[in-house]
Amino acid sequence: MGRQIWKAGTFEYPIPAALVSVGDYQNSNLLTIAWTGIINSNPPMCYISVRKERYSYDIINKNREFVINLTNKKLVRVTDWCGVRSGSKFDKFEEMHLTKEKAKFIKCPIVSESPVALECKVVETKDLGSHTMFIAKILSIDVDEKYIDKNGAFDISKCELIAYANGGYYELGKKLGTFGYSVRKKKNKEKR
Amino acid sequence: MGRQIWKAGTFEYPIPAALVSVGDYQNSNLLTIAWTGIINSNPPMCYISVRKERYSYDIINKNREFVINLTNKKLVRVTDWCGVRSGSKFDKFEEMHLTKEKAKFIKCPIVSESPVALECKVVETKDLGSHTMFIAKILSIDVDEKYIDKNGAFDISKCELIAYANGGYYELGKKLGTFGYSVRKKKNKEKR
Repeated sequence: MGRQIWKAGTFEYPIPAALVSVGDYQNSNLLTIAWTGIINSNPPMCYISVRKERYSYDIINKNREFVINLTNKKLVRVTDWCGVRSGSKFDKFEEMHLTKEKAKFIKCPIVSESPVALECKVVETKDLGSHTMFIAKILSIDVDEKYIDKNGAFDISKCELIAYANGGYYELGKKLGTFGYSVRKKKNKEKR
Repeated sequence: MGRQIWKAGTFEYPIPAALVSVGDYQNSNLLTIAWTGIINSNPPMCYISVRKERYSYDIINKNREFVINLTNKKLVRVTDWCGVRSGSKFDKFEEMHLTKEKAKFIKCPIVSESPVALECKVVETKDLGSHTMFIAKILSIDVDEKYIDKNGAFDISKCELIAYANGGYYELGKKLGTFGYSVRKKKNKEKR
């Protein structure tokens, strides 16, 4: 068996299916974005790439801010719906029975049902062709307290985050390892 | 229950844990990258963000090309190891018993054990602070034939891709929906 060489495409998976909120508390919209990720650690920076044709494009371009709401199992249908319907026709918060919550640093509302929300401030835009990349600084991480245990530790497995891959939404399954596990000495390793 | 506002951080998950190959066929290296994603559909473009201190940084900066090898269950340990060890000390292909395969458009080798590899050509670099973002055009998608069925369809679920989230590697679990499912009419929907 060998390889087939296919023409160029956007086949990098799994990626997030983020619910992005834009606008201000009164006039807001939601859009689902898979072209998003972290681009820098210090300062913490991320991006979203948005088609110019999308309803939210002008709003982001004008307000220069957005919230990345991470999505989980309970939000799969909402996430899909907000990705195929347009804010020009629907009040998505209302249609999807989502709760708006005030962000701390920006005017966009947070989706209260989302386990983790990142408040983001656009610092640069790059027109790349079909999409414009909005490069942003992350201002804060707003975490739902119900995922924090008594010791203040955040348990990401309880969030039930979902991933997007080639047209499908997937739950995260079994944990296969933790960063650095391949070089850590096992405590109970047998001596030989 | 409410929200805790944490200081800014890179908390966007799940994301890929990509095995990136750099250099040329003889002098190559592998590094694991989570700060990667798609930034444009047409033309297909992606990025990787790399710390200047990493051994591969100078290689990418000089050669202006890389391969994104998607990782799966069988590659979890390899993925982790290539993320914590340096190419200055190890020949990672050799240490991890990985097979080099020739790419079609660039000099970097493909990891033969990876289900899907993207050949990428750097078109711009952006220094963002801790990391430099290498913005690239995707030249081709090199797919392992064993994931293609008799009808030529590619079955991503057979790849057993892994996701990275907050220090853990996870398998993709149950499929929860397909893009657009929330607005599709059900064929067997009961009439009322």
